[in-house]
Amino acid sequence: MAGSTFGTAFSITTWGESHGEGVGVVIDGCPAGLPLSEDDIQAFLNRRKPGQSSYTTPRKEDDTAVILSGIFEGKTTGTPISVAVYNKSQRSKDYSAIKDIYRPGHADFTFDQKYGFRDYRGGGRSSGRETIGRVAAGAVAAKLLKQFGIELCTYTESIHHIRINDAHFDADEIMRNPVYMPDKEAAKKAAALLEQKMGEKDSVGGVIRGIIRHVPAGLGEPVFDKLDALLAQAMFSVGAVKGFEIGDGFNAAFAFGSENNDAFTTDASGNIAKLTNHAGGILGGMSDGSDITYRVAVKPTPSIARPQSTVSTNKTPVTVEIHGRHDPIIVPRAVVVIESMAALTLADLLLRNTGARLDTLKKFYLPS
Amino acid sequence: MAGSTFGTAFSITTWGESHGEGVGVVIDGCPAGLPLSEDDIQAFLNRRKPGQSSYTTPRKEDDTAVILSGIFEGKTTGTPISVAVYNKSQRSKDYSAIKDIYRPGHADFTFDQKYGFRDYRGGGRSSGRETIGRVAAGAVAAKLLKQFGIELCTYTESIHHIRINDAHFDADEIMRNPVYMPDKEAAKKAAALLEQKMGEKDSVGGVIRGIIRHVPAGLGEPVFDKLDALLAQAMFSVGAVKGFEIGDGFNAAFAFGSENNDAFTTDASGNIAKLTNHAGGILGGMSDGSDITYRVAVKPTPSIARPQSTVSTNKTPVTVEIHGRHDPIIVPRAVVVIESMAALTLADLLLRNTGARLDTLKKFYLPS
Amino acid sequence: MAGSTFGTAFSITTWGESHGEGVGVVIDGCPAGLPLSEDDIQAFLNRRKPGQSSYTTPRKEDDTAVILSGIFEGKTTGTPISVAVYNKSQRSKDYSAIKDIYRPGHADFTFDQKYGFRDYRGGGRSSGRETIGRVAAGAVAAKLLKQFGIELCTYTESIHHIRINDAHFDADEIMRNPVYMPDKEAAKKAAALLEQKMGEKDSVGGVIRGIIRHVPAGLGEPVFDKLDALLAQAMFSVGAVKGFEIGDGFNAAFAFGSENNDAFTTDASGNIAKLTNHAGGILGGMSDGSDITYRVAVKPTPSIARPQSTVSTNKTPVTVEIHGRHDPIIVPRAVVVIESMAALTLADLLLRNTGARLDTLKKFYLPS
Amino acid sequence: MAGSTFGTAFSITTWGESHGEGVGVVIDGCPAGLPLSEDDIQAFLNRRKPGQSSYTTPRKEDDTAVILSGIFEGKTTGTPISVAVYNKSQRSKDYSAIKDIYRPGHADFTFDQKYGFRDYRGGGRSSGRETIGRVAAGAVAAKLLKQFGIELCTYTESIHHIRINDAHFDADEIMRNPVYMPDKEAAKKAAALLEQKMGEKDSVGGVIRGIIRHVPAGLGEPVFDKLDALLAQAMFSVGAVKGFEIGDGFNAAFAFGSENNDAFTTDASGNIAKLTNHAGGILGGMSDGSDITYRVAVKPTPSIARPQSTVSTNKTPVTVEIHGRHDPIIVPRAVVVIESMAALTLADLLLRNTGARLDTLKKFYLPS
Repeated sequence: MAGSTFGTAFSITTWGESHGEGVGVVIDGCPAGLPLSEDDIQAFLNRRKPGQSSYTTPRKEDDTAVILSGIFEGKTTGTPISVAVYNKSQRSKDYSAIKDIYRPGHADFTFDQKYGFRDYRGGGRSSGRETIGRVAAGAVAAKLLKQFGIELCTYTESIHHIRINDAHFDADEIMRNPVYMPDKEAAKKAAALLEQKMGEKDSVGGVIRGIIRHVPAGLGEPVFDKLDALLAQAMFSVGAVKGFEIGDGFNAAFAFGSENNDAFTTDASGNIAKLTNHAGGILGGMSDGSDITYRVAVKPTPSIARPQSTVSTNKTPVTVEIHGRHDPIIVPRAVVVIESMAALTLADLLLRNTGARLDTLKKFYLPS
Repeated sequence: MAGSTFGTAFSITTWGESHGEGVGVVIDGCPAGLPLSEDDIQAFLNRRKPGQSSYTTPRKEDDTAVILSGIFEGKTTGTPISVAVYNKSQRSKDYSAIKDIYRPGHADFTFDQKYGFRDYRGGGRSSGRETIGRVAAGAVAAKLLKQFGIELCTYTESIHHIRINDAHFDADEIMRNPVYMPDKEAAKKAAALLEQKMGEKDSVGGVIRGIIRHVPAGLGEPVFDKLDALLAQAMFSVGAVKGFEIGDGFNAAFAFGSENNDAFTTDASGNIAKLTNHAGGILGGMSDGSDITYRVAVKPTPSIARPQSTVSTNKTPVTVEIHGRHDPIIVPRAVVVIESMAALTLADLLLRNTGARLDTLKKFYLPS
Repeated sequence: MAGSTFGTAFSITTWGESHGEGVGVVIDGCPAGLPLSEDDIQAFLNRRKPGQSSYTTPRKEDDTAVILSGIFEGKTTGTPISVAVYNKSQRSKDYSAIKDIYRPGHADFTFDQKYGFRDYRGGGRSSGRETIGRVAAGAVAAKLLKQFGIELCTYTESIHHIRINDAHFDADEIMRNPVYMPDKEAAKKAAALLEQKMGEKDSVGGVIRGIIRHVPAGLGEPVFDKLDALLAQAMFSVGAVKGFEIGDGFNAAFAFGSENNDAFTTDASGNIAKLTNHAGGILGGMSDGSDITYRVAVKPTPSIARPQSTVSTNKTPVTVEIHGRHDPIIVPRAVVVIESMAALTLADLLLRNTGARLDTLKKFYLPS
Repeated sequence: MAGSTFGTAFSITTWGESHGEGVGVVIDGCPAGLPLSEDDIQAFLNRRKPGQSSYTTPRKEDDTAVILSGIFEGKTTGTPISVAVYNKSQRSKDYSAIKDIYRPGHADFTFDQKYGFRDYRGGGRSSGRETIGRVAAGAVAAKLLKQFGIELCTYTESIHHIRINDAHFDADEIMRNPVYMPDKEAAKKAAALLEQKMGEKDSVGGVIRGIIRHVPAGLGEPVFDKLDALLAQAMFSVGAVKGFEIGDGFNAAFAFGSENNDAFTTDASGNIAKLTNHAGGILGGMSDGSDITYRVAVKPTPSIARPQSTVSTNKTPVTVEIHGRHDPIIVPRAVVVIESMAALTLADLLLRNTGARLDTLKKFYLPS
């Protein structure tokens, strides 16, 4: 039942399959008056565009965003912003090889079980192309957040066992290498591993890390719509995600209370702050003013060219080799998808927070 | 804005604070005809009841569930089931010690930031007592799921670095020891650690593991309301949770595709099954018929009796020692909360799935 | 599926049946800092209390509101406000007379069709007692609206063909007569008609009129969540409502554009206003600053003591006479229910409106 | 905040303005397996297409529907169906005449109040063109309902005081005359009135009547999501609607209980039925198996070419004459919009109803 909509106040609905006419999103609830152009969206889309390196699929898509509504004289109007990216590279490929088999690690079997049949061309709705709509919307959310000083920094923390060296962290490096790592040396090693694994017809997983800065305290709704709970939903809604941590994450389970508690203090400006940030910027489901930090585990690409055992739709054992245009790793292109989901979650909670207090609400309606 | 409701079709709304008149839940959307009594709910509540061992708070609450609506002649009627647990042990304690300070690891600061003031008595809405409503509703959801053969098994996998030995796994043992571990030896070691840390006025974290069996394939909605995405929200909505994994979780990030993919096969009954279950029973956000497996990281109890540095509400540095009735570990009592959240998520998606196909929908309305 | 929740930002969930343990409501999303006591709620409940005149059921219910959560030191905390009214007058009456028959004009048949069985004691969930939760919540919404100068005036406009004389309109009279009419003479005539019809074992319908004053312009969301659309849903969610009009309503269908359009002008304070208000204070689904005016048609009480033809649950024709405590008219006690639904709709849209513009949103977060 | 989405299980989100790139809709939750083509949608769109008679705007739009997603091999896949209608007739007209004034009866003023500015070209989001998305989705909903035998009949009942003669009712006539009246004579008189009023630079209102046949009993959720409540929201969400009635509507307010109650009986097939249908097919918010009947009041077109008094955005009194392509009446083209909203409401409640009973739910999952 439904399920293609995310967010309550800043709400998005995505549509589209990998091999249909296109993919897109309708953004509803964006405040009026935000300067916005197709360039803003394109800049985000370019970060997930295929064909940018030897580690991404050579599919020749321009992935050009078209804004169909919601903008007037360069600004958002408060009405739905519809963005479409038309598919241009729908090769009339022969899908007979995968039409009747269930690819391991893919959603072929579950789609058939749920709906009785499926669009077998390239993953259909479960294709990574569905995330184009999220990224287009994420660009809008991120631009909105920027108006409030909120900044998102997202990158590849590790690819297989190759992890960045925190001592070498360089934010500017992220956009300079094809694996989006903030550490030049680690990026090189990761590239070498990817080359090797491509040669072995195999694929690799990794971890994405996100930091959200300058979030005002108090965002997030206690109980079910906690900031961390909605971030967790957001992240796990991305296809290949298998784990999510806030702050110290699983390490917090191995800490004592005396180690894990963050002492409150006052900062140079006299504002209340925390001495440490094991909590990852969230207490009781609400932002505490510290950096929000999280980590996302991404599984290796399920499509690999080496022979795999599986069954056909009529339950016969078969061997399948998945050829075609597939990245050996999902992580680098997923970085902007993860950042987009974080931005969408924050934008929604930013809008939902304004009615929390009678005194501020009164100032809104009764200014003087 | 709002945020106290979880679920779309099987929907719950919780209410209540630790030191108000009581806590409770309204369950809306439970199908009519389910046999249900207060005993069903009490059995679940007893699993989180305080005062059951030396590792849980000695607060003397009966935590007795009262069903106020939605049941007629022993069965659910399809209308809202209202359950209340009245607070009986609201000691007119002196809260002046914590009223004006921000306890580390607690939501005092964020509540003040969001709402302008807070109910400072024992955590208010962010208290663990809020979860009573979830557990009461979880009992109903679990009973509903049982009608469809779905079973939930949830337990403590590790307390600090003391992990169960999988070779000694004994499901019957879970309810026999106060830490809800399925391994008698590990439970003993954990108990010893807890005794030690209580002596040191410190607290301990741990990991909860859940397995959901016999889930029909196809539950979960593609894209944002994936089964794993809603489970993730459900789990992170529980106060002390800092990490969540489905299947192999973060280990999937360190695996190659050839290792992580689960080959499809046919089982003894000729049904399609998987040879392995790295995916944790979910593909493309939908259940695949295998066991759904997940892991939840729980931080150590923030309330500890040793001196901690913090600030007062007027930004003055102070030292605080949190005395009173506090568990040295959250994990054991959280096991049933986690199981309840899993049951609620599944029940919701079970109801949401029925309209996925025209053919089955037609059988519903046009039985022929 | 679900359906017991109304509102998005200011959200209520009602529970309870006529002959269960009680009825109640959980209010989620009320801003923190609103002074609120049980007296505020009781004042609203008293307006729908039975047994106040010969035209209302003599059921001896105190209908006493108890606040179970969400208030601290006399103010709302921003967390759910749970209100319960425990049933005290559940007479262990013999319901065998109506248990197996379908009462005309009641929901007995449809409940059985939907759920397979029903709580046959006094209407169950479809009883008028369900509205107690709405009225309790309406009291909170109305108190919130009052902080912004918004006032609700609701009254009986007509009972059968006895209509108030607009020239004699006296707002103070509304609370002075048992039929809540703002015209003493009309109220007397209506009372006489009711006496007559009670003698004839019959019942009477009528029309309720509402006026909402000082609503800031811009409340209501374009397209599906228009202010008038949500008011219409709110009103038709009240059991006996059969018609709803905004402004001139059906008369607008018989007017020409030149008659129906309201010319804009400026008022004494130099603000933009309308010369007339055929539109009822709503243009394009948003409040325009004029009075919001609406009209609600209420059917006669379906429970009448004279013999009626119907069928039993096993499809046998039977004659039924419905004795017991039943009002000869629903309208007067429904006045406060209608006012409550209007208040709830406005409160929700008041909270939802704050994110419409970037400039005002920036002032909220960046007060400078 | 948001507001462009309607429906919970069968859910639609519309986008687009009159003079942007286009208008459209995303339909989420349509069951998989429904045969669907662009022709199905076009047939509905053609019923609201401008330029079909002298009483509709001569705007030369093809209004051609393009399906962008959700269909595979001629059937719905269960994933979102995105439909776009690109605007082709965006005349680079000079809007300076209306840019700075508030047109009476339009949403210019309220849009400015809410959002700080507006798209002044032809109504923007409040334009009738927004309903194209609804009608496209309504075509899908109606086709789904047809699979269950549910039929919708919608027509113009009256134009100003010219009402159809029920004795001459001819369903086939509806599509034969430009005013969609089921009575040839009334249609002729209405046409004459429209000609006259166009000459007088005025506009006319009217009433639309809908009948929904063969609805299974039990659709609609008690309390807030009653079938009549959601129909009321649906209808009032259409721009020019000012009144709504179910069954006898306002006449029920002038009836006695003995007149208004519908006696239950058994029909020729031995099924339970009602002797009369004052209730309009809904009892307690749920369908009772009888025809669902409703009536919608539509105001006269606010755009009229005769001089009207109003003010400019800077509060100066001005006179405005609204020239351009405007229908003298909204009613005929609104007929299919109203029918679409009814179909959408029913489709949503059809899907939401399947979890009401445990016994039928068990048959779904455990067919045995």
